[in-house]
Amino acid sequence: MTLREDADYIIKKAIQNVLPDEAVAAALKDKDFGSGHIYVVAAGKAGWQMGKAAADILGNRITKGVVVTKYDHVKGDIPKIICFEAGHPVPDENSFKGTQAAIDLVSDLKAEDTVLFLLSGGGSALFEKSLISGEELADITKQLLSCGADIVEINTLRKRMSAVKGGKFAEICAPAQVFSIVLSDVLGDPLDMIASGPAYPDSSSCEDALAIVEKYDIKLSEQAWKLVQIETPKKLTNVETKITGSVRNLCLAAAEACRELGYEPIILTDQLRCEAREAGSFLASIARTQQSLKNNKALAYLAGGETIVHLTGQGLGGRNQELALAAAPGIAKLENTAVFSLGSDGTDGPTDAAGGYVDGTTLEILNAKGIDIFEVLKNNDAYHALQACDGLIVTGATGTNVNDVAVLLMK
Amino acid sequence: MTLREDADYIIKKAIQNVLPDEAVAAALKDKDFGSGHIYVVAAGKAGWQMGKAAADILGNRITKGVVVTKYDHVKGDIPKIICFEAGHPVPDENSFKGTQAAIDLVSDLKAEDTVLFLLSGGGSALFEKSLISGEELADITKQLLSCGADIVEINTLRKRMSAVKGGKFAEICAPAQVFSIVLSDVLGDPLDMIASGPAYPDSSSCEDALAIVEKYDIKLSEQAWKLVQIETPKKLTNVETKITGSVRNLCLAAAEACRELGYEPIILTDQLRCEAREAGSFLASIARTQQSLKNNKALAYLAGGETIVHLTGQGLGGRNQELALAAAPGIAKLENTAVFSLGSDGTDGPTDAAGGYVDGTTLEILNAKGIDIFEVLKNNDAYHALQACDGLIVTGATGTNVNDVAVLLMK
Repeated sequence: MTLREDADYIIKKAIQNVLPDEAVAAALKDKDFGSGHIYVVAAGKAGWQMGKAAADILGNRITKGVVVTKYDHVKGDIPKIICFEAGHPVPDENSFKGTQAAIDLVSDLKAEDTVLFLLSGGGSALFEKSLISGEELADITKQLLSCGADIVEINTLRKRMSAVKGGKFAEICAPAQVFSIVLSDVLGDPLDMIASGPAYPDSSSCEDALAIVEKYDIKLSEQAWKLVQIETPKKLTNVETKITGSVRNLCLAAAEACRELGYEPIILTDQLRCEAREAGSFLASIARTQQSLKNNKALAYLAGGETIVHLTGQGLGGRNQELALAAAPGIAKLENTAVFSLGSDGTDGPTDAAGGYVDGTTLEILNAKGIDIFEVLKNNDAYHALQACDGLIVTGATGTNVNDVAVLLMK
Repeated sequence: MTLREDADYIIKKAIQNVLPDEAVAAALKDKDFGSGHIYVVAAGKAGWQMGKAAADILGNRITKGVVVTKYDHVKGDIPKIICFEAGHPVPDENSFKGTQAAIDLVSDLKAEDTVLFLLSGGGSALFEKSLISGEELADITKQLLSCGADIVEINTLRKRMSAVKGGKFAEICAPAQVFSIVLSDVLGDPLDMIASGPAYPDSSSCEDALAIVEKYDIKLSEQAWKLVQIETPKKLTNVETKITGSVRNLCLAAAEACRELGYEPIILTDQLRCEAREAGSFLASIARTQQSLKNNKALAYLAGGETIVHLTGQGLGGRNQELALAAAPGIAKLENTAVFSLGSDGTDGPTDAAGGYVDGTTLEILNAKGIDIFEVLKNNDAYHALQACDGLIVTGATGTNVNDVAVLLMK
């Protein structure tokens, strides 16, 4: 098998192991919903898959449901459940429509009823009823993304601009119970941060929110300024939460696939959050040293997490593509060495690729085509460079979202 | 022992093992200089130590010698050898004076004579006869440093502005033989790059030099533009070179010291060259994951190399201090976890510290003092923040220079 074939195998196995279906089944296994109605609300990039899995298991026990997920993520009808597709990472009108449908569904329930709340990454944008104008919300998100704010910081602000985030959705569901199954896309799994925690008490404070506004010098309207200063729920008595599926599972599954192929896997971290290109450089520096030790062992170094990109150009790409491309100069001319990185959701940045793959020949191939990696990175245009050297990883939407994994292969 | 005591022990042991004395002794062991005169020329931050070691071994066999090293690096007289102290990282008049003395020493030798050329890091600035004005040379160096150019790029340009670099010093020594002992401070040990290779054929081309000028948009005088286009020697027949001491030895020695203290050492790389603060973040992400696995094993992750800093502020610091400080938020509240990083020469940036040390309490200590690490890094002011939390590593000039080592300790 070629290195690229190894990579493709590892990618397939890793994603298979973190698909939402089994996660939902496991969480529902011993759940007793009592005699009340069950209403399903699924929000996030894995919303359709999770909703479908719940419907397959619970069948007629479900009274009604709403799914809000990303465009092209609805794969068919689900009995009794209405599916909405909406904007991500910037919320749009369909996000608000789908969320309003969910609010209408749960606004008048009884104490014996249960809202089965299926939450996954992307929920911050997809599950939203804004307390400011859609334009301003989009603008604030854009400001935060372009200055490199991390997801925790973005969510801390979003919660205060929202009628559903930061525990507020669970308040709407009351007196009904909320049974929440969460696929984690936030490193370290802080439940109030995943999709901005619509059904979890908020641990972030107004003080935190103000600090973020100052740190990045975010421009806010008068209304938004007021909202930043209103505190979120700190206690919720009607919620039970099961967390399932996370970047750690993704790394473990990738490591297991590496082992099957004869590599000795070493998981460095599942909480990577540095600059994408610098993580690529770091992995390349590991490759240079380990290759020079010539120990004839096939090794795989894995780093899971979610890296950051600072936009300085107008090109096309994503953090995984940047990470991989940035590793190419560092592993140039190394034999049997590859670096690849991908988002488990199958979508890296605003592209149709899940991530990128490079090996010891990539630099030379790009140079021969007159493509300068340094310039490409300056322009945040990794997509086109990787396209030129068959380095794009394309999986299509996977239906799951548990962050990213980067792998250095050496054999 | 506390974590800080462990760190100090590891630092002491690592540096002891890469001091130049033993390296010079080993390289001279079986050397037959024949019946001619021996002239010693030592250039670089380890110049005095290497010159002293050679004098101790060869005694009266030495006819005359010159040492050019950094300020405060001359530790006493050496028989028959004149010592110069000069500017680093920006060359000054004393660099030129010392280098001219070396040129005068070797300009009129016979074929049976030998120039014992002892080279170490810092030689690029310290050993210099410029073909452009001192002001312009200083200005070009400053331009390159402030836009984040790496040492290989800086040296490629310097060679062309110099009468001694890029193999030109060996040409001046001819017809005498040159016996060159090199302490390596360039990752991967490319001999033509260490101190810009005064006695080694130059592998960089005019084309490379022009590409660097374009990449960073370096401003050059007409004279400098002409020099960029003149090719350097590609072959030298009168030179024998022994390379000795490098960052790999530094990492191995640090790893051995970790093992003595009960840590299982893992050398990730000895060729690290990414952004300093991102390397700190990467090490912290390793710490978070490994600590959460709670395997009760004392671990030490080591990364050697030379990281990069992009200057955006006017503060005081160095790459090792930035690396350590940037790790502090990521390891905040982790027990028994520390990250430290230091330059083996004992000098990190334009400071009196060798590097920095942080642990799980650092963030809280700094917050309590009103010091915001994010702001400090923006201002490149790691020195003062580390000073405020007893996080500076101060060794004084060590007399050696084999890059840096960063260590993550967990016990």
